[in-house]
Amino acid sequence: NPSAAEIMGRKAYKSVKDVPGVIDVAVFAIPAKFVAQALIEVGEKKIPGAVLIPSGFAETGNVEGQQEIVDIGRKYNVRLMGPNIYGFYYTPKNLCATFCTAYDVKGKAALSSQSGGIGMAIIGFSRSAKMGVSAIVGLGNKSDIDEDDLLTFFEQDDNTAIIAQHLEDLKDGRAFAEVAKRVSKKKPIVVLKAGRTAMGARAASSHTGALAGNDKIYEDVLKQSGVIRARSLRDLLEFARAIPILPTPKGENVVIITGAGGSGVLLSDACVDNDLTLMAMPPDLDAAFRKFIPPFGAAGNPVDITGGEPPKTYQNTVRLGLEDPRIHALILGYWHTIVTPPMVFARKLVEVVEEMRAKGIEKPIVASLAGDVEVEEAAEYLFDHGIPAYAYSTEIPVAVLGAKYKWARGAGLI
Amino acid sequence: NPSAAEIMGRKAYKSVKDVPGVIDVAVFAIPAKFVAQALIEVGEKKIPGAVLIPSGFAETGNVEGQQEIVDIGRKYNVRLMGPNIYGFYYTPKNLCATFCTAYDVKGKAALSSQSGGIGMAIIGFSRSAKMGVSAIVGLGNKSDIDEDDLLTFFEQDDNTAIIAQHLEDLKDGRAFAEVAKRVSKKKPIVVLKAGRTAMGARAASSHTGALAGNDKIYEDVLKQSGVIRARSLRDLLEFARAIPILPTPKGENVVIITGAGGSGVLLSDACVDNDLTLMAMPPDLDAAFRKFIPPFGAAGNPVDITGGEPPKTYQNTVRLGLEDPRIHALILGYWHTIVTPPMVFARKLVEVVEEMRAKGIEKPIVASLAGDVEVEEAAEYLFDHGIPAYAYSTEIPVAVLGAKYKWARGAGLI
Repeated sequence: NPSAAEIMGRKAYKSVKDVPGVIDVAVFAIPAKFVAQALIEVGEKKIPGAVLIPSGFAETGNVEGQQEIVDIGRKYNVRLMGPNIYGFYYTPKNLCATFCTAYDVKGKAALSSQSGGIGMAIIGFSRSAKMGVSAIVGLGNKSDIDEDDLLTFFEQDDNTAIIAQHLEDLKDGRAFAEVAKRVSKKKPIVVLKAGRTAMGARAASSHTGALAGNDKIYEDVLKQSGVIRARSLRDLLEFARAIPILPTPKGENVVIITGAGGSGVLLSDACVDNDLTLMAMPPDLDAAFRKFIPPFGAAGNPVDITGGEPPKTYQNTVRLGLEDPRIHALILGYWHTIVTPPMVFARKLVEVVEEMRAKGIEKPIVASLAGDVEVEEAAEYLFDHGIPAYAYSTEIPVAVLGAKYKWARGAGLI
Repeated sequence: NPSAAEIMGRKAYKSVKDVPGVIDVAVFAIPAKFVAQALIEVGEKKIPGAVLIPSGFAETGNVEGQQEIVDIGRKYNVRLMGPNIYGFYYTPKNLCATFCTAYDVKGKAALSSQSGGIGMAIIGFSRSAKMGVSAIVGLGNKSDIDEDDLLTFFEQDDNTAIIAQHLEDLKDGRAFAEVAKRVSKKKPIVVLKAGRTAMGARAASSHTGALAGNDKIYEDVLKQSGVIRARSLRDLLEFARAIPILPTPKGENVVIITGAGGSGVLLSDACVDNDLTLMAMPPDLDAAFRKFIPPFGAAGNPVDITGGEPPKTYQNTVRLGLEDPRIHALILGYWHTIVTPPMVFARKLVEVVEEMRAKGIEKPIVASLAGDVEVEEAAEYLFDHGIPAYAYSTEIPVAVLGAKYKWARGAGLI
């Protein structure tokens, strides 16, 4: 700070060059017009990274100003994040290099956004859904660091198991495709491409100067790179939350087990929408399921255990689904009844899943919960125990499982 | 009750025929095998309606049993709801003729479902979202009363402003189309057709014996009848919640006003997805908007007021959007900042909207809220004041507005 020796009890320096010792990263929270000079000092101090929060560069037409700082960065070998960003979080180091509220629920999802507003939506959703994240990164004008740099970093970051990116354009589509193709073999990458319509592309161009480009090309690039494409902001967030906790399926045979026949129908529709294969039930397995369900229930697939059943029936059928090696993933449809209240269902389900985990059996399971408001608590409990579960929706659980499958297929794991 | 004279302090009768006075409706909560005899007594007592909760009829293969009660109903002129249902709610009369928990948040949405599980999801969502409903109805096996009967009832029911139906089949597609065509001119009808895929149709057939049929035919019938088709359970619920509180638009010109440029891009994409027209901004209106926003903001459409603006800027631009008669609907993108916190934004927005309402100006407004968890409270406040608002989503608000438009076009109102 040029005019204070102390701020809120902490020592302030006139220049970064006056700070003793080695500095890892410089966070810029000064007006745009002072950035270039401060960046030179950062370069002279040999700080390798600069987080450029200030706006007032290319996005407002100040293209020369942005070019100037890019040139300074190159000259001094300082990597630039931004400008025009909210900063970034990296939770494994408790680092909040941002002007936003602190975020500290640690987990395996690394999210990034080109837009500050979307970044704030990521933070709000993460906190509300208790989504564990490793990082949340603003990319803004992407004068230097962009999406493929993040992919390269998170590829080798053991704290990250999934990478989810909101973007309005790719400055270098070829570089992204090359890196994404490699990284997606190891970790799922989800992308929400904003500006995929003509109207959206026009808005993107006046927002960040992004050349949103022909969506057909993006579609091809993303598909060939093994990237999961999210169709909506909510999908991006739900995928980032659920995919890391789902085990990778070992094959294509999906079985629906449902207490509510009506959920079974909607879950089946959703399987088709999300390219999932409902297993053709072999006669012996069909007979085995029938042993556990009432005569007016329906075996086949969905396995309809009917609504009046006790927790034991859910447990027995789920155990069978997990034990039989021909089945690779389960979709559960729970129906709230007095006989099997939501939290009883949730606890009993987790019991079976943990019993199987102890035997080394891990398969992806998702659940759709139909019932009164108590199902919300059950959904949270199930999520905490590795089972993505959703109240009042038959589509989100299946979309999430479908996304995991899409990744597993692209990565050659099934 | 055949064996008790009193149950929980209330007098019990051996037969409905012993009950003194006139009875409006008989609710059956007895095993299937006793239904026929009790229904005869209901007929002899001249009760006009029977709510048949018991299962064990056509859905379990007991087709004759179901035919028997249908014949009894016809003979005695008793209308049948069910069998195999959870019953129904009609909140204007505080009526809960169901075995589910009581529901009492009154409002304008009448929902029905063919499946009990989906019915429970409706109740849970309604309670959680504080969605006001006039009725929730289970239709189950639809031995007599079906979807078009409900349409006919709710058409003349002043407590109902929107009808939302989950169905797996239509027993009489022609009758439905005819009634829906008439009713949809007055009130929006939303339908979630389950079993729209081959897998889903197969599941429906083993669930309720529904002949889910060729989806192309349903698509045509629903479209020609002016019915809004929901693609997911969540859409059905969100549409039922939001459509009744949105004023009907008077034309096709939609304007996006956003604090977050990134939201503006995604909202524009969503407009295209939902057949909404972003108004081509006339130069004088463009200039008028520009007066309120910083020079680096973007007018045009979306109007990007930029993130650092005070509440006044949201107010000024929204007021302009409401006052100018060339604009017919507004989509707002809010970005959580220290300058304009969520609840400040919400209150200031409601101020302007109420100021305009007092002048007789009512236009549909929806809002997408990007920010930290406080935006959830703001969304609830806005909803309570007639502005459907959604946290962490740019798609749901636009889908909801799109559904309202679809209805208004079908009803010939624009």
